Amino acid sequence: MKNVLGRDIPAEFLTAGREVFQGQYYRDGYTYTKHAPRVNAQVKPGKDKLLPDIEAVVRATGLQDGMTISFHHHLRDGDYIVNMVMKVIHELGIKDLTVCASSLGKAHDYLVPCIEDGTVTNISTSGIRDEIGEAVSAGKLKNPAIIRSHGGRARAIEDGTVKIDVAFIGAATSDPYGNASGKGGKADTGVLSYMAGDAQYADKVVIITDTLVSSPNFPASIEGVDVDYVVQVDAIGDPHKIATGALRLTSDTRELLMAKNAAKCMYYSGFFKDGFSFQTGAGGPSLATTIFLKEFMDQANVKCGWAMGGITEPIVDLFKAGYIHNLLDDQAFDLASVASAHTDPKHFEISASQYANPFNKGAFVNQLDFVILGALEVDVDFNVNVVQGSNGLLQGAPGGHPDTAAGATVTIIVAPLIRSRIATVRTAVTSVTTPGESIDIVVTDYGVAVNPKRTDLLAAFKDTNIPLKSIETLRDLAYEYAGEPKDIEFEDQVVALVEYRDGTFIDAIKKPKWLN
Amino acid sequence: MKNVLGRDIPAEFLTAGREVFQGQYYRDGYTYTKHAPRVNAQVKPGKDKLLPDIEAVVRATGLQDGMTISFHHHLRDGDYIVNMVMKVIHELGIKDLTVCASSLGKAHDYLVPCIEDGTVTNISTSGIRDEIGEAVSAGKLKNPAIIRSHGGRARAIEDGTVKIDVAFIGAATSDPYGNASGKGGKADTGVLSYMAGDAQYADKVVIITDTLVSSPNFPASIEGVDVDYVVQVDAIGDPHKIATGALRLTSDTRELLMAKNAAKCMYYSGFFKDGFSFQTGAGGPSLATTIFLKEFMDQANVKCGWAMGGITEPIVDLFKAGYIHNLLDDQAFDLASVASAHTDPKHFEISASQYANPFNKGAFVNQLDFVILGALEVDVDFNVNVVQGSNGLLQGAPGGHPDTAAGATVTIIVAPLIRSRIATVRTAVTSVTTPGESIDIVVTDYGVAVNPKRTDLLAAFKDTNIPLKSIETLRDLAYEYAGEPKDIEFEDQVVALVEYRDGTFIDAIKKPKWLN
Repeated sequence: MKNVLGRDIPAEFLTAGREVFQGQYYRDGYTYTKHAPRVNAQVKPGKDKLLPDIEAVVRATGLQDGMTISFHHHLRDGDYIVNMVMKVIHELGIKDLTVCASSLGKAHDYLVPCIEDGTVTNISTSGIRDEIGEAVSAGKLKNPAIIRSHGGRARAIEDGTVKIDVAFIGAATSDPYGNASGKGGKADTGVLSYMAGDAQYADKVVIITDTLVSSPNFPASIEGVDVDYVVQVDAIGDPHKIATGALRLTSDTRELLMAKNAAKCMYYSGFFKDGFSFQTGAGGPSLATTIFLKEFMDQANVKCGWAMGGITEPIVDLFKAGYIHNLLDDQAFDLASVASAHTDPKHFEISASQYANPFNKGAFVNQLDFVILGALEVDVDFNVNVVQGSNGLLQGAPGGHPDTAAGATVTIIVAPLIRSRIATVRTAVTSVTTPGESIDIVVTDYGVAVNPKRTDLLAAFKDTNIPLKSIETLRDLAYEYAGEPKDIEFEDQVVALVEYRDGTFIDAIKKPKWLN
Repeated sequence: MKNVLGRDIPAEFLTAGREVFQGQYYRDGYTYTKHAPRVNAQVKPGKDKLLPDIEAVVRATGLQDGMTISFHHHLRDGDYIVNMVMKVIHELGIKDLTVCASSLGKAHDYLVPCIEDGTVTNISTSGIRDEIGEAVSAGKLKNPAIIRSHGGRARAIEDGTVKIDVAFIGAATSDPYGNASGKGGKADTGVLSYMAGDAQYADKVVIITDTLVSSPNFPASIEGVDVDYVVQVDAIGDPHKIATGALRLTSDTRELLMAKNAAKCMYYSGFFKDGFSFQTGAGGPSLATTIFLKEFMDQANVKCGWAMGGITEPIVDLFKAGYIHNLLDDQAFDLASVASAHTDPKHFEISASQYANPFNKGAFVNQLDFVILGALEVDVDFNVNVVQGSNGLLQGAPGGHPDTAAGATVTIIVAPLIRSRIATVRTAVTSVTTPGESIDIVVTDYGVAVNPKRTDLLAAFKDTNIPLKSIETLRDLAYEYAGEPKDIEFEDQVVALVEYRDGTFIDAIKKPKWLN
């Protein structure tokens, strides 16, 4: 069945109330009953939640074939938790598990043998890259992976689409009762935002830490009242791979040009007012936009009320210089933001649900004035792909892309027209992650396209030096320089479903033939 | 049907799975599914939660006959919220409501006409005093009031015993999206602990504030993602009646004697070790105990890991002097504790569930070493009454009494042997609030009784100058000095049910005949 974007979702996946994507605000006002976990009441004092090792914990949780387990990616490329837990589960011979991760990457390669032998038969994740991306793209996972945005994952947990049996939460510090934090310890992640919902909605909640502290470990990202077991291990992650010392600040003139034009679009948009809010990503042009923002804020004599999202050093610098009043942090991307999360009283941890869940009573993305996002591909309908490479391979992550794009008043995509000799702007994206109706501006190194529905922005940019072009012109330029991209041939097998933040399917990704 | 304490619970109340009290840890390990609220998803940005007045809010929530509404008592005797909301509801002619309040007192007298004309037919509360106490004692409420401890209320909300349709939350400050706090503004309560569960489990959540601030109002006690509507009013409370300048520090030599003996019991108990935890109440002897505690901590060269509960100035003083490392605050009793809640980074707000809910995965009461509590009456089985006057009138509140008593390693009751010429220690309490099995020590001005089951404490106190007496001896002394109390005569009508923290009925309170 085709959705409103013309993307075909095979009928076999449209069971149990599942629908195809029908527009970004299609389910606004939807009324539902939240998922409720089963809880084992601890009335009696004096019980010890500490167990000696991962195996004891897995056994204590009663984990069985067919259950759902969850993990987070705050430890990023330094994460030891997923492999550590999966090895024990693998050895215990538990099969047919669903892994619901906030994201997966190269630290989680032990999932590949687990996929291959049926230990894991379902995966739900934002990022799906590297070896896991290849294994899933090749159709090795029994059922299609579900690709979810951060807001969509929070929603799926709260509305019961995903019922987590056991949440395994790596935490930098915990007390013996499970009050756990991303702060301190040996593997500091600053925040634990992606696990707030897991702790509240999973039946069993396990804290895995390498740094046990005395009670109360406050402020706690995860409350001990939600935690069944605590286990101390030697190390939850490699601190050197968790947060990079500094993200790359571009010196590429094309990237700087795009960054300046993105900042200029914000400046002239009509929404660049004192107290405005914004989010930028961690890519080169996004980081550089933050720098130019400072100049434009001086020029307009405005300050930012709050910046949100994955927090990076340039954002922290603006914050410390008084240009941003508050930071709302759902992920610390580098050492500077981890440090700021500890020490700055106006640097606040927010949960994934507060950040972006479309099914609560109003997430912070709804209050965003601006968001700067990247793209692997953009098409002439402004649809964006950030999940699938142009070669058909799963290699990206929606992250908060569809969430912030739907929420922000002005959504700006920054992407080079051509990347690795392949057109970024094209007639149709390989798969849709974020619908074109959520995208307002596309900034490339060859010009800036405004979504025609944003007549207000077109009017606001009219007498400026923003190099406006139609999206079709940008596509034509891209094809002129890089050639028209060849269609990739796919098998019939669906290897991943791209779930829109509201639970509808926005695309179905098939196995590329060349992977045979 | 008689419960294990011999208290008769009429069969008519033992429906829908309700049971009689069967021991403090009877439901340990009980597995249940948490209550889940209905939520109206706010997918679309740009919606305004602000409504012009209380009537508009009541109409927007869809409040109807027979529904349940909730309130908190952080504004204490200065609260305007309950009367303000009830007047609108009364005028709208909505009937047969259940009021689920964290506590009720003299600020809430508008409930009396609402009780009398059937606007309110059920009440669930901790405190029930003054005019409301008299009205309920006289049988004017259609159905028996349910008396719940703070932990019991948190449990009832989480396990679905109470399904709150609309929570009306007075907040010192809020942003337009409903991120609300007890801090700041004109009617500062320091914390909003009793409403954390209401915000998460009620279908509709309303913030009523007199101080609207810009977004984000962080740190937020109530998260905007749980809030449907926000309304600004002129004043939510009278700041002079919210927190008293200073609670009475006793100069009564009998009270000082009791306080010193209570502190001495802690000192000699065997549990007075570095990092210990404790809670004291706001009564004269409790406050004085805190003073003596300092001497004994110096003597033993120990510091307190954390103090919890209703926080008072003497506790804050010890904390600021470095004798207590952390404060866990579910209620600020005076201006000093309100101020400390704002400024001291180790002064933490905890929810009622974190504090005392027996049905989560381990509340902080489970980790208490000591609690000092008061009593209206104590009997020779160590049962305590803090709800009903010896004249049969409802006039007290369980608060955290049964919760902390069940959780703490050493539970100490401090009460004068005789009060207003009536024996406090007696053969049987008028009604049971906290079972004797939870009580370890009773400190009176005529001696100290240790529960015989605590052979460890009896051994520890053997060669000390603690004036040990049996509880029967204390009772005999009380009767010798004040006379044996006369039995009060009651009608058959049950006017209140005392619900133990786990949801079982520990007592049923009947209408005193003299109220006819």
